[in-house]
Amino acid sequence: MNKKDTLELLEKIKSGQMSPEDVLARLCTEPFEDLGYAKPDHHRELRQGIPEIIYGAGKTPEQIVGIGSAMLDKGQRLILITRLSPEVASAVSKNLCLNYHSIARIGVIGETPAPDGIGKIVIATGGTSDIPVAEEAAITAETLGNSVVRLYDVGVAGLHRLLSKIGDITDAQVVISIAGMEGALTSVIGGLVDCPVIGVPTSVGYGASFNGLSALLSMLNSCASGVSVVNIDNGFGAGYLASMINHRRGY
Amino acid sequence: MNKKDTLELLEKIKSGQMSPEDVLARLCTEPFEDLGYAKPDHHRELRQGIPEIIYGAGKTPEQIVGIGSAMLDKGQRLILITRLSPEVASAVSKNLCLNYHSIARIGVIGETPAPDGIGKIVIATGGTSDIPVAEEAAITAETLGNSVVRLYDVGVAGLHRLLSKIGDITDAQVVISIAGMEGALTSVIGGLVDCPVIGVPTSVGYGASFNGLSALLSMLNSCASGVSVVNIDNGFGAGYLASMINHRRGY
Amino acid sequence: MNKKDTLELLEKIKSGQMSPEDVLARLCTEPFEDLGYAKPDHHRELRQGIPEIIYGAGKTPEQIVGIGSAMLDKGQRLILITRLSPEVASAVSKNLCLNYHSIARIGVIGETPAPDGIGKIVIATGGTSDIPVAEEAAITAETLGNSVVRLYDVGVAGLHRLLSKIGDITDAQVVISIAGMEGALTSVIGGLVDCPVIGVPTSVGYGASFNGLSALLSMLNSCASGVSVVNIDNGFGAGYLASMINHRRGY
Amino acid sequence: MNKKDTLELLEKIKSGQMSPEDVLARLCTEPFEDLGYAKPDHHRELRQGIPEIIYGAGKTPEQIVGIGSAMLDKGQRLILITRLSPEVASAVSKNLCLNYHSIARIGVIGETPAPDGIGKIVIATGGTSDIPVAEEAAITAETLGNSVVRLYDVGVAGLHRLLSKIGDITDAQVVISIAGMEGALTSVIGGLVDCPVIGVPTSVGYGASFNGLSALLSMLNSCASGVSVVNIDNGFGAGYLASMINHRRGY
Amino acid sequence: MNKKDTLELLEKIKSGQMSPEDVLARLCTEPFEDLGYAKPDHHRELRQGIPEIIYGAGKTPEQIVGIGSAMLDKGQRLILITRLSPEVASAVSKNLCLNYHSIARIGVIGETPAPDGIGKIVIATGGTSDIPVAEEAAITAETLGNSVVRLYDVGVAGLHRLLSKIGDITDAQVVISIAGMEGALTSVIGGLVDCPVIGVPTSVGYGASFNGLSALLSMLNSCASGVSVVNIDNGFGAGYLASMINHRRGY
Amino acid sequence: MNKKDTLELLEKIKSGQMSPEDVLARLCTEPFEDLGYAKPDHHRELRQGIPEIIYGAGKTPEQIVGIGSAMLDKGQRLILITRLSPEVASAVSKNLCLNYHSIARIGVIGETPAPDGIGKIVIATGGTSDIPVAEEAAITAETLGNSVVRLYDVGVAGLHRLLSKIGDITDAQVVISIAGMEGALTSVIGGLVDCPVIGVPTSVGYGASFNGLSALLSMLNSCASGVSVVNIDNGFGAGYLASMINHRRGY
Amino acid sequence: MNKKDTLELLEKIKSGQMSPEDVLARLCTEPFEDLGYAKPDHHRELRQGIPEIIYGAGKTPEQIVGIGSAMLDKGQRLILITRLSPEVASAVSKNLCLNYHSIARIGVIGETPAPDGIGKIVIATGGTSDIPVAEEAAITAETLGNSVVRLYDVGVAGLHRLLSKIGDITDAQVVISIAGMEGALTSVIGGLVDCPVIGVPTSVGYGASFNGLSALLSMLNSCASGVSVVNIDNGFGAGYLASMINHRRGY
Amino acid sequence: MNKKDTLELLEKIKSGQMSPEDVLARLCTEPFEDLGYAKPDHHRELRQGIPEIIYGAGKTPEQIVGIGSAMLDKGQRLILITRLSPEVASAVSKNLCLNYHSIARIGVIGETPAPDGIGKIVIATGGTSDIPVAEEAAITAETLGNSVVRLYDVGVAGLHRLLSKIGDITDAQVVISIAGMEGALTSVIGGLVDCPVIGVPTSVGYGASFNGLSALLSMLNSCASGVSVVNIDNGFGAGYLASMINHRRGY
Repeated sequence: MNKKDTLELLEKIKSGQMSPEDVLARLCTEPFEDLGYAKPDHHRELRQGIPEIIYGAGKTPEQIVGIGSAMLDKGQRLILITRLSPEVASAVSKNLCLNYHSIARIGVIGETPAPDGIGKIVIATGGTSDIPVAEEAAITAETLGNSVVRLYDVGVAGLHRLLSKIGDITDAQVVISIAGMEGALTSVIGGLVDCPVIGVPTSVGYGASFNGLSALLSMLNSCASGVSVVNIDNGFGAGYLASMINHRRGY
Repeated sequence: MNKKDTLELLEKIKSGQMSPEDVLARLCTEPFEDLGYAKPDHHRELRQGIPEIIYGAGKTPEQIVGIGSAMLDKGQRLILITRLSPEVASAVSKNLCLNYHSIARIGVIGETPAPDGIGKIVIATGGTSDIPVAEEAAITAETLGNSVVRLYDVGVAGLHRLLSKIGDITDAQVVISIAGMEGALTSVIGGLVDCPVIGVPTSVGYGASFNGLSALLSMLNSCASGVSVVNIDNGFGAGYLASMINHRRGY
Repeated sequence: MNKKDTLELLEKIKSGQMSPEDVLARLCTEPFEDLGYAKPDHHRELRQGIPEIIYGAGKTPEQIVGIGSAMLDKGQRLILITRLSPEVASAVSKNLCLNYHSIARIGVIGETPAPDGIGKIVIATGGTSDIPVAEEAAITAETLGNSVVRLYDVGVAGLHRLLSKIGDITDAQVVISIAGMEGALTSVIGGLVDCPVIGVPTSVGYGASFNGLSALLSMLNSCASGVSVVNIDNGFGAGYLASMINHRRGY
Repeated sequence: MNKKDTLELLEKIKSGQMSPEDVLARLCTEPFEDLGYAKPDHHRELRQGIPEIIYGAGKTPEQIVGIGSAMLDKGQRLILITRLSPEVASAVSKNLCLNYHSIARIGVIGETPAPDGIGKIVIATGGTSDIPVAEEAAITAETLGNSVVRLYDVGVAGLHRLLSKIGDITDAQVVISIAGMEGALTSVIGGLVDCPVIGVPTSVGYGASFNGLSALLSMLNSCASGVSVVNIDNGFGAGYLASMINHRRGY
Repeated sequence: MNKKDTLELLEKIKSGQMSPEDVLARLCTEPFEDLGYAKPDHHRELRQGIPEIIYGAGKTPEQIVGIGSAMLDKGQRLILITRLSPEVASAVSKNLCLNYHSIARIGVIGETPAPDGIGKIVIATGGTSDIPVAEEAAITAETLGNSVVRLYDVGVAGLHRLLSKIGDITDAQVVISIAGMEGALTSVIGGLVDCPVIGVPTSVGYGASFNGLSALLSMLNSCASGVSVVNIDNGFGAGYLASMINHRRGY
Repeated sequence: MNKKDTLELLEKIKSGQMSPEDVLARLCTEPFEDLGYAKPDHHRELRQGIPEIIYGAGKTPEQIVGIGSAMLDKGQRLILITRLSPEVASAVSKNLCLNYHSIARIGVIGETPAPDGIGKIVIATGGTSDIPVAEEAAITAETLGNSVVRLYDVGVAGLHRLLSKIGDITDAQVVISIAGMEGALTSVIGGLVDCPVIGVPTSVGYGASFNGLSALLSMLNSCASGVSVVNIDNGFGAGYLASMINHRRGY
Repeated sequence: MNKKDTLELLEKIKSGQMSPEDVLARLCTEPFEDLGYAKPDHHRELRQGIPEIIYGAGKTPEQIVGIGSAMLDKGQRLILITRLSPEVASAVSKNLCLNYHSIARIGVIGETPAPDGIGKIVIATGGTSDIPVAEEAAITAETLGNSVVRLYDVGVAGLHRLLSKIGDITDAQVVISIAGMEGALTSVIGGLVDCPVIGVPTSVGYGASFNGLSALLSMLNSCASGVSVVNIDNGFGAGYLASMINHRRGY
Repeated sequence: MNKKDTLELLEKIKSGQMSPEDVLARLCTEPFEDLGYAKPDHHRELRQGIPEIIYGAGKTPEQIVGIGSAMLDKGQRLILITRLSPEVASAVSKNLCLNYHSIARIGVIGETPAPDGIGKIVIATGGTSDIPVAEEAAITAETLGNSVVRLYDVGVAGLHRLLSKIGDITDAQVVISIAGMEGALTSVIGGLVDCPVIGVPTSVGYGASFNGLSALLSMLNSCASGVSVVNIDNGFGAGYLASMINHRRGY
């Protein structure tokens, strides 16, 4: 609730339209619904400009249906459910009209909008095994109204694969660079472009990759400017942030 | 060197203006100068759109003067020298016209441009001890043409200090959130705004802060969307990235 | 055994009521029963003022029934069995009259007493996935005679959800703050209240949450005063400690 | 600002005493003073019931004097400055009337109040080297109005030293157990008493103590109920929390 | 092969009984049998005075039978097979006469000798869940000719349980102290006795026990003299070492 | 694409054989095939002198068949598929003629060449459980044209087993030393030979082996000269590097 | 205080020699002296059979003199002060007759007794830099009545140096094996002898030795039986334990 | 001592030239000299084919002079002293004719031989701050008879700097790739060449570089084949190993 809204409320006291008690009640009214096990946030679209996200991991199909239904009832038209296993997706889709992306493990309720960002988001992966994380980012970004270019399996051990795509990369508004193991892809891309690069370390690898720690540290230490990092395997977070950057505009 | 440049070069062979050998030589020509101990990159301004940065830590005054002079000779008009101790700054300023920011430990050669970004960059810190990192970010962003709002000592242990500045925060194009210890500031800000938030963990703290590890992990695990993280104490990186985002424009 | 008891015993030697050998034997008598695989502590209720707890993890149904029966035989009227899987609970309940709380994974033998603490214990969680740990704390506290207020899914990424409950929080005698991932909830609550706050990091999360390490470090580094921390996922320990604090009284 | 205050403000609009714009301004007024480098919190005594604390580490004498003076100007009568080196203390005391405790590295402005807690706080250390942390806790607790019993050098490697003090320990309202190295003292005390035990791991030790990590993990894993833990070397936090518990009272 | 053996071999050259080539061959002869996948060491009993041990983990039943048979063929009368799952034990016992201890997960081939050590080995555990590791130590020590006293579930959170057994503990030649979680038992015992104490951290626990790391660090940092530590869950190693110490004798 | 190739292309412009546009297209042509999910690299044999490797972990049978077929179509005669489970191998072999090594978990398509290295590669393991990693190294090296000597179960706890093979070891061109747990084998071998020693830590062990971390650190700290280390369990990498060293020749 | 002593005390009540109150007082009498900052333990020699040890690190010369004098006053004839810097030693020796071993950083008050152990203690180091830790062990053992054989700089990278001393090693009653970096020496010795081996990891090394962590993990994972480990750089602990083992005798 | 030497010794018994006792003595004779604090190894040149190395860190000038003199007395003509501080170098050079390389911190006694390797060793660094480690590698390699090409400051954040040197890199027999921070240089080079690449992580960096851990993990996880890794900052080890590889030859 912003200053303008508050001012309008207060004006209503002055004009006698509302009592002080009622205004106070409104000020304390929950802008979310309390389902007991969760508090879906119906004003979020307004406050943050984007659809509500349901983090599916660790929720039962019943809880997801409950939260999703409450959102739809309030008029939400686009819902993203992340970390959704095929089994839970299948159970949820009995009650809600769900478009399930199995590699990304994302369910979408509602229609993906036409891209309206400034430019394109490039999503690059070091290897084939990083694709599920990349798809989580890609589906997220597309659902949020972005045009996405996928460049998969362009890891630095075969640098020409990356360099042959140099045109796509330098055209990007944002690059999401996804890699496990040594995570060097992010530094190399960071040195080639002049747009923000979001590094997503993945848990792909074995031994001294320590479930993504190696790639995480590598990306955090990138010498290239313009690089920042999200959590290991957090494709959603990267896609969401990339969309934000791709929709920045002055006032 | 982009496709267009390459094509022009190749046309010159066809037209007989250059021999194949000369073109090959040009393709392999170093777009940087080789000082032996460093290879300053004179094309970087063009390729990445920003001034050259000198990472001052571990370099002697002589090396910094050498690199800086080479840059100035090539026409560079704005140079940022980070991690510059007062002693080295003093020595360098005997040879180069240096504007030294002692809290930020940054030296600037050349004139800070007028802000030309989309909007404002807000820089918030959890405590007073985080200010040096915040100033590194602030001076970097200002030198790169941004308008900066400083909100220092607004940590979550006294939430009203942060909430009283809610107007500044929600007006930002980008927020840089800087905190040591538990690093909770970043998550709280991330939940309040709909613009990108760059988290900078600091090494401020003791005991189980493990030199910034605690804040780093905390920020990487932020539940708020739109948050990404740079290295511990990396104020420069955050300021640079924030400037990139604040200058995004469509084509 | 306190000084007074010892003195009485010694007096009995003087008066000839007991031989020195018998007194020595008594002094060495075990105030617990030795079942071989376990040594249930029948004086604990007296010594520490609360019922015996059985840590169920890694014990067979037979061992639990054996320990529980020995306690009941000695007159214990209230037994709490933590970390009890549904399968083991089902097997145990064939021999003992068990009230099983499936989300909390706690079995209770005996009747929950009426609340007799100073005030209320508030239990807050960052998300829906933290509820099992929260219920472990809640059932523990209720069984120990406390009135509990549950505030679930009030994480800092949507700060208004927490602030709308500010009345409950500031009324508490103790707050148990339970969160995984970045664990920022605990610091924020710590800054809002003037009562003890017990942080419980949870293993909820992925990647750089490192099974709760991130939340643990975050809470240990809280800038807010009055915060202390228990082991990751240790809902029982938090509920027990909260009950202790909620029953403090002068003499 | 609580509901009642807000209601009163709103009534003033209705009665015409204040305009809506003025009320909005008041709602956003900062309840702290902004010194630029710090935002001392003058309402904290009311909101949390205790004096303001200045965390001295990393602050210049000028900053400490500035913050302290602002507090005194607002009527604060008791200020605790922690992590204060002798050099800074000496510089500060030129401007402020400071009582400096050199072992605890704490400066106190104002008069220590008479103890008014429910009972006594026992502070036990494993060894002689843990005394500085213990004194930080002790001075904090005493300044906050508590009676403190010091039991130093009672580590478990000589168990009889601890057991000879059993009377003091079992009489406590709260025990602060301070130990480095293996940190076993906390578990042993936790098993002997029926009051809250606050563990403070210290960085005392060498090798595999890893600067307090060993003691920290040990205390977090304590099998004894009623034990919670604060940050390594955080004597202040333990003293503050102990005081809170020792002042709990019903309404 | 010791000096005397070597000298005898060399004498045979001088006397013409063997050619230099043959002696060289003998010097390089393997004092073990090469089964390809393993090299059982038939001289070990002589060289180290004890039976051969087979580390069962990761070996197929066929490999264990192969190694065991080769040992028996060479006259070995006592074989200990550790880390033996019930399934593999069952398969092995079809070919070899195996006495399987299911809690200890140890199989013994041959007859346990009468105890011939200097005194008794006391094996103490902190809790019930540590018993499998304790039994691994106990069966190992008994098979190697030691008299073992088992003191299970005597953790420090109920100190009187341990103190009631003080007679057993102070009578020991060696104490094996086994505990997970905070591992404090080892330090407490170390302070009570004047014989060697072998600490065995166990992986029992959860959260910040980090699979035994907490107990391991705790024991390594023990302030009590005479304490040393073996690997997490290494009951066998402790039992073996205890037997060595219990059989020390002068010459 | 090397300098000579580039020069030839440029000459074709001069001679009019190709247009500048065509040459540019060729320069940007991908020297690999783009299957969408993977980009097999058909020029790799030329550029690096060895067959293509498929990292099988995390790839479906369909993906492996697709990549393998594309390679065979381009004329590749030898393909190594690592980390191939029996199930996937079985599925793949329905479409491709696969020689599957089950212990090494490697599938080979094509004929193993005759050894053409400088000398022999010795592969030594500390124990029986390290054999799968050793076989991965051995099959890799043999497929790349090397003669391999296997010395399994020669760990330092029975030093004579290693010393009896001293002749094999000192004859080697390269030694691959594979060990879990304490990883001491690598240092001992490093002190015995004057050829490169490649250490491969394995995840064999338990407790404080921390899944190979112990052996990894041990090998990295080897005092012996000539030792380097690859990732935990990376038998393939060691075999590949050993082959490189064993094929070194001057020009 | 053992059972026999207690029984005698109790008999005195019966016989009228002492009142129950006096006996109780005796039972609670502290068998140590309370100096405030320390509680020296005058019964320790009786209870554990050895002289008192003062851990010098972090104690002032005054504290050490105070503790030492109290001990001497009570009749202690042999005192070991470990971790004693030359400066503190110099200050202490003004008040107490101190024999200072500068490499070992140990001060001894009183006369070193003639060796009376079962056999010899061998102390081996991997390198020259480990000697200070080794001397701490050696002086400790000698002061406790042991004959010590020093084998320094016999690390496994030059195995013949160790093997040339094989006679000394196999003659030992106990071996103390001291090494930094990879710590392999301990495993190798453990495989050569049939007596207990005490591993002491040292903080010697750099990079991935992580201040002794590498050697610590290596020793904990030793495959050789009979090996146990003390804290990093804990020469004293090893010497003390070795002396215990070397003095074991039956009753 | 190899088989041939042993055989010759044994022949001497047969021919009566030596007695068996004398031969045994010879077999046990130390091929090193025992200076008490160190055991320099005079046969090492023969056994391993290279000069003796003195690890200077932690040795006094006297010890270094002692060891060096003993080596020279035995006829060693080339000695490398690593980790030698300027102060110690200065002291040593009063007694020994020392050529000191201050950046590499290496002292060389004797004349650097002409290069006799198969080809060239390329040493590349990511930045200017890595040069001291690179020089340690370079001086080591040159002293061991190799021709070295230095490519400094060619980190991946400015990829064209590396690519402009592609000719040097692909001509190498071995590449030593030295980088701190993210360590990506090693993977990129590993993908460009078909010769062994030795990665040297450096401790250059701050924050999440954790003193080289980040670069170490990154290099260990390199996807490029042919890469192995030495300890953090171990320039000597890399130079030594590179020389070994560059001198490999068949027999």
